[in-house]
Amino acid sequence: MTTVGILGGGQLARMMALAGAPLGLRFSVMDTSADACAGQFAPLVVGDYRDGVALAEFASGIDIATFDFENVPAESAQWLCERVPMFPNPRALGTTQDRLAEKTLFGELGIPVPGYVPVDTREDLDAAVAKLGAPCILKTRRLGYDGKGQFRIRAAGDAGAAWDALGAQAGAGGLILEAFVPFERELSVVAVRARDGEFRTWPLTENWHVDGVLSASLAPARVAPELEARAVDYARALAEALDYVGVFALELFCHDGRLLANELAPRVHNSGHWSIEGAETSQFGNHLRAVLGLPLGATRALGRACMLNWIGEMPSPGPVLAEPGGHWHDYGKTSRPGRKVGHATLRADSDEDLADALERVGAALGREAQVAPVLARLCDPLPPPAGKESP
Amino acid sequence: MTTVGILGGGQLARMMALAGAPLGLRFSVMDTSADACAGQFAPLVVGDYRDGVALAEFASGIDIATFDFENVPAESAQWLCERVPMFPNPRALGTTQDRLAEKTLFGELGIPVPGYVPVDTREDLDAAVAKLGAPCILKTRRLGYDGKGQFRIRAAGDAGAAWDALGAQAGAGGLILEAFVPFERELSVVAVRARDGEFRTWPLTENWHVDGVLSASLAPARVAPELEARAVDYARALAEALDYVGVFALELFCHDGRLLANELAPRVHNSGHWSIEGAETSQFGNHLRAVLGLPLGATRALGRACMLNWIGEMPSPGPVLAEPGGHWHDYGKTSRPGRKVGHATLRADSDEDLADALERVGAALGREAQVAPVLARLCDPLPPPAGKESP
Ligand SMILES: Nc1ncnc2c1ncn2[C@@H]1O[C@H](COP(=O)(O)OP(=O)(O)O)[C@@H](O)[C@H]1O
Ligand SMILES: Nc1ncnc2c1ncn2[C@@H]1O[C@H](COP(=O)(O)OP(=O)(O)O)[C@@H](O)[C@H]1O
Ligand SMILES: [Mg+2]
Ligand SMILES: [Mg+2]
Repeated sequence: MTTVGILGGGQLARMMALAGAPLGLRFSVMDTSADACAGQFAPLVVGDYRDGVALAEFASGIDIATFDFENVPAESAQWLCERVPMFPNPRALGTTQDRLAEKTLFGELGIPVPGYVPVDTREDLDAAVAKLGAPCILKTRRLGYDGKGQFRIRAAGDAGAAWDALGAQAGAGGLILEAFVPFERELSVVAVRARDGEFRTWPLTENWHVDGVLSASLAPARVAPELEARAVDYARALAEALDYVGVFALELFCHDGRLLANELAPRVHNSGHWSIEGAETSQFGNHLRAVLGLPLGATRALGRACMLNWIGEMPSPGPVLAEPGGHWHDYGKTSRPGRKVGHATLRADSDEDLADALERVGAALGREAQVAPVLARLCDPLPPPAGKESP
Repeated sequence: MTTVGILGGGQLARMMALAGAPLGLRFSVMDTSADACAGQFAPLVVGDYRDGVALAEFASGIDIATFDFENVPAESAQWLCERVPMFPNPRALGTTQDRLAEKTLFGELGIPVPGYVPVDTREDLDAAVAKLGAPCILKTRRLGYDGKGQFRIRAAGDAGAAWDALGAQAGAGGLILEAFVPFERELSVVAVRARDGEFRTWPLTENWHVDGVLSASLAPARVAPELEARAVDYARALAEALDYVGVFALELFCHDGRLLANELAPRVHNSGHWSIEGAETSQFGNHLRAVLGLPLGATRALGRACMLNWIGEMPSPGPVLAEPGGHWHDYGKTSRPGRKVGHATLRADSDEDLADALERVGAALGREAQVAPVLARLCDPLPPPAGKESP
């Protein structure tokens, strides 16, 4: 009997535990909140990740550790990995916790990224804006998620407001200015690497964000095979460089036929949720298989899937459940503005059927705007050109 | 937030809780054993179903009740259903708890059954054997499962041994003698009926038993559409007669083109486990949707699936997990002879691929005998004849 410890007890840990039960696993989840939704289906240790007593209690009850949350303090991860096997490794976690370290790695591996400049002072910021030009985005190097810790600079004159919003964090975690990419699409590669180095990816996913938060995903993305192959090459290079074990997502911008890496999430990822019903093996199942040294499962898609995120509060489940390929995911959380409280996945055998289902669900829930970009893509006759080779 | 109470905390309750989590449900499970495997993922109330204090504790923590176990005492079910909504209803439970009541209902609905005679005394038994002829099977009317509470009478001279084995139960629950059906196939209809009467079935499943315990299931079964339609008609008639809400399985013998009803299991069923990966909606998901009054999910198959039961102890998971369509289900139980400890489902897009996977898994696990009948069926070129119409 193996007990898997998960640092972080949100919906990712919850779905991981549900996927791990059939493997005969038990779980223990550590979270700072007694309300963490994974605690509804797995024992919960409540405590700050820096609290040695809580961490020791957590460590004593598990055989192996993994994460639903990448921002666990480096020292806590280090302490834990000296006691139990831990995947992904602390270096992978450390690199991806810092946008600058991450972009440096992308560069070393020849993976193109948007223009960027590290920013430590107000003067740095002005120089960086002058260099990259507006529009651009000021981001905290650390602890950002769901678009938090970002300020969009539309014109050079916004630099002051950006500094007012984020300047206080220049000293702590550091800041970075990024050129704004007027992308045609956002894509992600959800990938898994086993302990023995075997590497697999799910079909490429196209994603739509609203206010920096994922709103919808379509998989398999409608892209040219050359583009997908390039994205997979980038993901493989990163996985090998980090000696990564488990599932991760590489977020990409597609602009003018080029792929630019945005960030790497060292964990199961919102843009992989469609794989629960839409793929032979889900990201959660394969993450656990990888972490435990079991054979990886097939990542092939079962038809076409669209995931819709529910933010703030759950809509009525009826319209989705009434769809032939409708699947519901309520994370068991209380409503709160901006909070990810659930998602739905619609699966179908054809683009046409998927579009019909999306149209019905969008209309029934008054979410026409959320489904509109997906519908537009499904009616799009052609995949985007493979474009120029990456430099 | 709705809490579903499940009477019985075995693998069926466990898989139900795992399927219900995404619906935003919480669970409470009642079982006589503190070890019940559903307790690993849901709060467990330990107590005898006749223990009023334990039952009251259970009832106070739930909004709605259902079962993983049909042999809950009638009075306990009655007590509970006066306090919380309960599905299926106590009458459906009561009828299917007693093989004689069940067969009487089959008869009333014009559903053919094997010849049978109720047996109360040793003299009854001799007369019944004389009437039905050998071979035949003496069964307890109540509390039988997995072939327990049965004695096979190969020749009239075995009657004494049969009475020695089961005669003590003639007074308590009663006995029944059944003609032995030299069936070509065993089939089951797994069906679901909603609160509003909507009725759906999964594709017919073919089942193979060893020593009265399910060993393998293949779905969709390779049968003529007329035969499948007849089976579905029987299931629908039963569901309506019992005002059934939830999932049930109707076990059938197919002999000489006829379908004979064996028994009705008023719960999710082992022969429906393949639906977790092999159908758009699993039997567990749809049972909960029905019980809660939510729209039913599609029951269509996703390709072809074979379920292999693991009895006594779990084999090594490697060979199944290494299959492209291999899915593992370890119930988290300790090993014990005859105990259902887990199952595997192999899914494929074609009979050929499924046969190849079964052959590899059978060989790798030394379970050639378990997969052999399924392989034989997959190589069988033709579905069985639709046969004579039922009387
Ligand atoms: N440089 C950029 N150019 C254009 N859009 C961006 C850029 N950076 C971020 N975004 C938008 O904001 C979203 C969230 O930003 P991201 O850097 O991925 O932060 P988070 O860690 O919050 O996911 C992206 O998915 C994208 O839609
Ligand atoms: N009358 C019968 N003729 C032939 N085989 C039978 C008969 N009754 C039971 N069996 C065999 O034994 C298995 C278990 O019997 P069943 O009556 O279904 O009891 P249980 O409640 O234990 O499932 C059946 O699936 C079938 O393989
Ligand atoms: Mg992001
Ligand atoms: Mg049976």
